Parts: sequence; structure tokens; C-alpha cells
Amino acid sequence: MNMGRMQSFTASLRLLVLLGLACSSIRSVEGGKVLVMPVDGSHWLSMKILVEEMHRKGHEMVVLVPDASFHIGNGSYITQTFRVPYTRADLDAVVEDFKSGSMKPPTLLDIWENVKKLLTFNEMQVKGCETLLYDKPLTKSLKERSFDLMLTDPFLPCGLIIAEAFSIPTVNFLRGIPCGLDLAAAQCPSPPSYIPRFFTGNSDVMNFPQRVKNMVMVGLESFMCKALYSSFDELSSRYLQRDTTYKELLSHSAFWLLRFDFSFEYPRPMMPNMVTIGGLNCAKKKSLPADLEEFVNGSGDHGFVVFTLGSMVSELPEAKAREFFEAFRQIPQRVLWRYTGVVPKDAPKNVKLMKWLPQNDLLAHPKAKAFITHGGTHGLYEGLCNGVPMVMIPLFGDQGDNVQRMVVRGVAESLNIFDITSEKLLGALRKVINDKSYKEKMMKLSAIHKDRPVEPLDLAVFWTEFVMRHKGAQHLRPAAHDLNWVQYHSLDVIGFLFLVLVTFICVMLKTCQFCFRRCCRSSNKKKKE
Amino acid sequence: MNMGRMQSFTASLRLLVLLGLACSSIRSVEGGKVLVMPVDGSHWLSMKILVEEMHRKGHEMVVLVPDASFHIGNGSYITQTFRVPYTRADLDAVVEDFKSGSMKPPTLLDIWENVKKLLTFNEMQVKGCETLLYDKPLTKSLKERSFDLMLTDPFLPCGLIIAEAFSIPTVNFLRGIPCGLDLAAAQCPSPPSYIPRFFTGNSDVMNFPQRVKNMVMVGLESFMCKALYSSFDELSSRYLQRDTTYKELLSHSAFWLLRFDFSFEYPRPMMPNMVTIGGLNCAKKKSLPADLEEFVNGSGDHGFVVFTLGSMVSELPEAKAREFFEAFRQIPQRVLWRYTGVVPKDAPKNVKLMKWLPQNDLLAHPKAKAFITHGGTHGLYEGLCNGVPMVMIPLFGDQGDNVQRMVVRGVAESLNIFDITSEKLLGALRKVINDKSYKEKMMKLSAIHKDRPVEPLDLAVFWTEFVMRHKGAQHLRPAAHDLNWVQYHSLDVIGFLFLVLVTFICVMLKTCQFCFRRCCRSSNKKKKE
Repeated sequence: MNMGRMQSFTASLRLLVLLGLACSSIRSVEGGKVLVMPVDGSHWLSMKILVEEMHRKGHEMVVLVPDASFHIGNGSYITQTFRVPYTRADLDAVVEDFKSGSMKPPTLLDIWENVKKLLTFNEMQVKGCETLLYDKPLTKSLKERSFDLMLTDPFLPCGLIIAEAFSIPTVNFLRGIPCGLDLAAAQCPSPPSYIPRFFTGNSDVMNFPQRVKNMVMVGLESFMCKALYSSFDELSSRYLQRDTTYKELLSHSAFWLLRFDFSFEYPRPMMPNMVTIGGLNCAKKKSLPADLEEFVNGSGDHGFVVFTLGSMVSELPEAKAREFFEAFRQIPQRVLWRYTGVVPKDAPKNVKLMKWLPQNDLLAHPKAKAFITHGGTHGLYEGLCNGVPMVMIPLFGDQGDNVQRMVVRGVAESLNIFDITSEKLLGALRKVINDKSYKEKMMKLSAIHKDRPVEPLDLAVFWTEFVMRHKGAQHLRPAAHDLNWVQYHSLDVIGFLFLVLVTFICVMLKTCQFCFRRCCRSSNKKKKE
Repeated sequence: MNMGRMQSFTASLRLLVLLGLACSSIRSVEGGKVLVMPVDGSHWLSMKILVEEMHRKGHEMVVLVPDASFHIGNGSYITQTFRVPYTRADLDAVVEDFKSGSMKPPTLLDIWENVKKLLTFNEMQVKGCETLLYDKPLTKSLKERSFDLMLTDPFLPCGLIIAEAFSIPTVNFLRGIPCGLDLAAAQCPSPPSYIPRFFTGNSDVMNFPQRVKNMVMVGLESFMCKALYSSFDELSSRYLQRDTTYKELLSHSAFWLLRFDFSFEYPRPMMPNMVTIGGLNCAKKKSLPADLEEFVNGSGDHGFVVFTLGSMVSELPEAKAREFFEAFRQIPQRVLWRYTGVVPKDAPKNVKLMKWLPQNDLLAHPKAKAFITHGGTHGLYEGLCNGVPMVMIPLFGDQGDNVQRMVVRGVAESLNIFDITSEKLLGALRKVINDKSYKEKMMKLSAIHKDRPVEPLDLAVFWTEFVMRHKGAQHLRPAAHDLNWVQYHSLDVIGFLFLVLVTFICVMLKTCQFCFRRCCRSSNKKKKE
């Protein structure tokens, strides 16, 4: 019996060793090393939350920071600055150009102008990426640090080129690539019959003309992708010394963290290596500073309105700003406005102007009645998770599409910045504040949004760590990646089966014809006889 | 200031009331009422785990039990028996028929025989469902109990018909419907180019002939669906007094709990109202009874083998059983076999025969070296989560497909029951036990399977409760449900755009022709002049 126990112990020990071997990859990344290639601007504000949480969990987070940037800077994580051939002033000029463009009603010529601006911005980014890639001492020292993972926002391809060069798995963190390259690269089906394309203004329920518009946009998307990423295609092929495209690099991604959820986005197919993490930014709430608490509490029953136009826009042309001041003068609510522009002498007293707002904490306050926002996903989710109805004024990028999603759900009103007047703003504000249906629908949507098995930030951390633990997520990679377009759509198979069917029918017909002739002949013979 | 505080208090109170109203649906289902329509056999064994957990969480779980069944019986939940026009003996006869059929190599004639058997079984189920539906006192009393939800296995449609009649949301709990009706009804894309169809033996990587086979199977699926469910179509139309089909009822489902995960299934698109819960059955482990513990510990370093062929098969034809006994005689491992058939006089001493096995607890034992199984998902996941390599002997249904998925991953060997010999079994057993690659791959796969943000049982409970809290999951329902086949595939749009293009080209050509002629004429004139 003792012998038996001894044997049993040895066997258990062996199994433990085997288990240990199999799970060694799991343990080795506790405190993994992650290289982070962010995209500047509001994109970074969301990603930063994940980076800081990963750092808090003990991972070495090394963030690549261009030496000219808007928001990417120091934090609890490690930063690695790299040179870029443009200055902060160049960046500001591009953004200023975008902003001024969005204040006028768009004409066909403006669309062309906007595309040109985007291409200018893109060209800067390509050059920035090129400088980083060919900074040999830097890339060499980075490679030697043996990172476990690249965490990147694939809106710009630099992170994926580095990941490919370093042979490390990539986790993408994004809202979506405007030309749909993300879905195409992830082999995620996206039928244009009910999945609205960016910039079309369509919802998921489309009539025939809307579906035609959507399909035309699908056609235009490939041109848009070409315009946006062909320089990167060239750069990555040159750098990696093999013929490749950004789409191909994207298709190697291990996992996709999608910065939306289905309380906001229209239901659509997903791939197993995708999770939605919309709202990961509004988990942490702090109490307001004393002066702000006093200001909002002083609003009484009427409550207050929060007004920001995103991290990039804190000013407005004077005439526009006056329309806002005029509208605010006529409402009983107090207003907190992130605004650094010209202030009229007779600015109404119920408006508090600030350089920066604790937006999420303000929206979480029970007296927050409405949120005037440009519709960036960051702010939008703060409005959504705090259940505050919105007046939305899209400026550029995906904001128009974001706004449309909230308006369709009856939780927001939308206005155009280029033809806004105090009357229009007043009408929209009064509607979302006084018509109870906006608040009720928003509370229901908020309840759905917050009713989830895992908090989005925890989910993002889990899957990022998962990819490190298992050195990728190969088991979630669909075999569709190995098929070409014809094979994926089974066109060769359908063609073959069609051929077989036609051949079969021909043979059958010929046989029938032959038999029929024989019959006729024999009956004719009989008649003659 | 006091006045301000008072106002602030009133405002907060109002907000709380509003919040309360919006969230009332959330609170009202704590202790919700769930009607459960299971499918008998092994299907029930998995669903029972969720039903018991839901009961434990305080929900009223009322399980509809036919008065002739294999496994559905009493438990911690409430049962409601209903009459069926067949007996347990009739059921046994059908299963016996299936079992005997699976012991012979299949011929074309046998396939036809099998289809006939399936239809006989199906006809019994239709009659059972009809008896239940038209049992007016019972359905009336059920309806009066105002259930919040129908939890059903949609392999058989009765639950969905009842849910439709009672106007309650449905949560489906399933591995998959053999003819792909689940995916079609959920609007889940399933390209046949890389998603293998049931019964084809294909993996997700297919060559041209395999893709042709897969596509032919897609064609056959619609016939299979018709054969399986047309009687139910008729029954539901008659009972609901409107023209409907089972596919339509299925498409109304609120949520899909899919009894697999991607450590087992090939990666494929999913819809937002689907989650995978594969492996929900192997969470709870108990220690072995003393006699079993002694037996398995006595196996020493060699360890032991667990052998079951599922809940429905505990016997084998004498000759077949002898092959197994002969193989087991030649291995150093001990064997635990769930077997109630004839035992040869000289049965080897290392084999312990039992009427019932604590399968999961045995597989969790560190000395478990191999698992001989028929490849039902229930047992398969117990092998997978405990990391035990398998020798798989598929008998019927989806088992062949399940086995193929494990063999492809290098964690199992497969044998046919109809031509099994002691040599073949011995070869397979020695391979999976002695070739370390099986155990290593299995441990890796097991690690991936168990590395998940939420335990599958908790996830199943969460989404079932979610559907109750929000009276459905309307926000996860894709708009594709409102499109017909032509619209979904945008064929009308493509046709229209093609027409526009052709018209444009024609007009351009005509214009060019016209201009060209004018030019020619004028130049001819000039020449003449």
C-alpha cells in the first residue's frame, strides 16, 4: 500500500511537471513586456486607460512617443521618444485647417479639400513612421528588449510594421478604420445591405436608395483605402524587404479590441478574435472639486449642462460662440463649457468657462441634465454610461456617424455647426431636457450598456494578457485568411457545379433526343410496313 | 445655501425615481420565472447544469417533462409532466435501432435507413409536441403563470412554438442544428469555403474537392431541414393560426448559448446575440468514492484509462466487447469502463466494469492517462478541460464531426466502431498514452480552453438573466432579419448599379459615335471644299 502511495506520488509529480511545462507560457508573461504604438489625439486618450491599467497590473508598458505630439506624453508607463520630421506647429496647422473646414457647410469642392488635408496629414505620418523605422539604434535597442506584444491603434500602420519586423503578436485597439480595412483584414463579414458604411448617414435599416448609396460607398472605400494607405504599403514593403500591403499586415493581428458596443453600434457579425470594449473610459469616477460642486449644486432643480467639443476643439469663431452664449442666456440651467476663445462682455452669468472639464465626473452628477458634445466616442460613452441625453454637433471624422446612432435611438438631438443659431440650439436643448422621453430612453440604453458580464477595461486587459500568455491567438484565426477572393466566395466551386449541371442536362437532353428519334423511326417503319 | 441644498436633494430624489423606473425591469426579475423545454438524452445532461444553477440563483425553473423519457426527471427544479403518445419502450426501440445501425459499416442503403429512423423519431416528437400544445388545461395553466423566459434546446421546435404562443423571449441552448437552420435563422454568416458542414468530415482547411463536397452539403441541408422540420412547420402554423415556419420562429430568438468554444470549433463569424459556453459541464469536481480512489491509485505509474460511450450506450455486441477486453488485457494501465453488457469469463483483472462512472471526477484525477469516448460534446469537454488525450469512437449524430476536430488538433486518435479490433484499439491507446505529443498538445489546448474571462456556466446564467432583465435582447438583433434573400445579398442594388453602368456606357458610346461622325462629316466637307 505504501508502495502504491509512493508510485501515486511520483505519477502526480510527473503530471505536475508536465502541467508546468504546458503552462510555462502562461506564467512567463506575468509582468509581460508590451510595446505601445498609439495614435495621437483623442485616440490616445482611450488607449491610455488600458496602458495605465496594464502598467498597474505589473506589465512593462513602453509607449512610443513622437517628439511632436498633442496628447501622448508622460504617465505611469515608460515612454520612448522618437524623432519625427515635423513640429508641433505643423500638427497644429493641420488641425486648424480641419477645424476651420468643419465650420462651413460642405460643398463638393470642400470634400476634395478635406481629402487633400487628410492626405497631407497622412504624408506627415508616413514620414514620421519612416524616420522611426530607419532609426537603427532605436529599433535595435527596442528589438533587443524582446517585447511580448505590440499594442497599437491600427488607424495608423506603424505599429503593425514594427510588430511584423519584431515577430511579435499584435493587439489592435480601435473604433474602426474609415475605409473598412479592419473588417476586410479580419475576414469579418459586413454585408452592405444592413451594415451602414462610414460617412453615408445610413442606419442599419435602409431603403433602396440608401442601400444603393451604401453600395457605392463600398466601391469608394477601396479608393479611400488606397489614398490613405498606399504610401504605407510602399514603406512596409521597402522596410520588411518583401512585397506586402498594410491589409496583409493587419490580417496577421492576433486580437481586436473594438472601442464600441451594441448599445451604440448596430448589431453586426463579429469574429472570435474580436471583443467590444466600448465605455472602458467611464469606469473611474471621482468627486468634483469644491468650486465645481458648489457651482453645479447652485443650479437647483434645473440642473446643469455640460458642453465640450472634444480634446482638439476648445475655441470657436467669435460669431458662432455668440450664438451659444445667446442660447445659454435663455435657459434656466447652468452651463459648464470647456472654452478658451473670445468671451463677449455681456456673457451670461449661468455659464462657467473652463480650460479643462472633469467631463465624466460632471456627467455622473445627478444634476447633469444635458451634454452638448461633438460626438467623439470617448465623450459619447461618458454621456451614455451616465445616462445624460445629448445635443450633438459633429465636427469631423466618424463623429457624424456616431451622432446618427444616438439620434436614431431617441437619446440625442443633432445640430450642424455650420448653420447653428441660438434658436436652433435652444430648441434642441429644451427638447432633450424637457421632453422626458429622451431621459427615459437614455436610462434604458445606459442600463443595457452597463449590464455586461465583464467590465470593458477588465476585458481589454484579459485579452491583451491572453495573447501574451499564449504567444498569439492562433486558435481564433479563421481559415478564411488562406483563401483568395474567388475561393472565399466559392465562385470556383459554384462555376464547377454549374458546369456539371449543364453537362448533365445536355447529356440527358441528347439521350432523350436520341431515344425519341429511335422511337419515331421505328414507329414510322411500322407505319410504312 | 440651505435652499440650494434642499433643491439639490429634491433633484436627486427625482433622479432616483427616474432611475428606479428605468431599472424596474432589472429588479423585477430577481427570482424570475423560466419555462424550460429540454431535448431528451445527452442534450438534457448539459442543459440540466444551467437549469440547476439558475434554480440555485433563486429563479423558478419549470421543466416540461414528457411522461416517457430517458433522462429528464426530477431535480432541484420544478417539473411539469405532460402526456406523450409514445412509451419509454418506443423510445428504447428507436435508440436500439440507431445503435445497431452504427455498429455496421455504412452503405448507401444504410444512410437511407438512418434517415428513415431519424424521421420516425422526429414523427414521435412532433406527435409529443402536438399532444402538449393541444393539452388546453395544461397550456392555459402554464400561460397563467406568466413566465419571463423560455429556455429551450432548439434541436426540437416545441419550446419555440410555446414561447411564440406565450409571447415570451427565448434563450436557445444548443450545440448546433444539423442542417444549419440555427445559423440561417440567426442571420449568422457561414461561408462554405472555410466553415465545414456537419457530416462532411471536412476541416476548416479544404482543398477544391472538399469545398465542392461542402457546397453540395449546403444544397442538401435545405432538404435535410425540410425532412426534419416540415411537420413542425405545419404544426406551428396550425397551432399559432398563421402561416409560419420553424425558421421564422427561430429567428425570433433573443439569445443563443452555444455549447462549444474555439478550442474545439473552427473559428467562424458569430452574431452579437451568441456566446460560446463549451465546457460548462466540467466545472464542479468532487473527490472519488473510496473504492474508486483505491482502484485508480493502485494503477501506479501506468495510470488508468476511462472508457464510456455516452449516456445512451452502455452495452456492446458480445464480439465487439471481446475486442475491447482483449486490448485492455495487453495494456499496463487499469481501465474503468461503463459497461452493462455480457462479460467474458476470463475478463482481464485490470478492468473495472461499472453501471455508471463519475466521468469528470475520474478524468480530473492526475493518473488518468487516456479517455476512450464516443465524442459527444459533453464527454469531449470533460476530456478537454482535464487535459486527457482521447481515443474516439464516434457512433452517430455530430460525433463524427466532433471527433474530427480533436484529431485535427493532434490530441486524439479516431477508430470506427464497425471495424474495430483489439490490435487497432491497442495501437491507438498506446499512441495517445506513450507518444508525449498527444499529452503536450492536449495540455496546451486545455490551457487555452480554460483561459477565459468568465466561466461558461456564469456566462450562460448572465445572458439568461440579461434577457429576463431587459425582456429580450432587441439591441442585439441584426436588421438583416427584415431583408429577403435578394436584398440581403444586395442583388437588387448590384443589378441596378449594373444597369446604370451599362446605360452610362451606351450613352457615352453613342455620344462618341455621334461626335466622331460629325467630325468625319465636317472634315469630308472641308476636303471636298
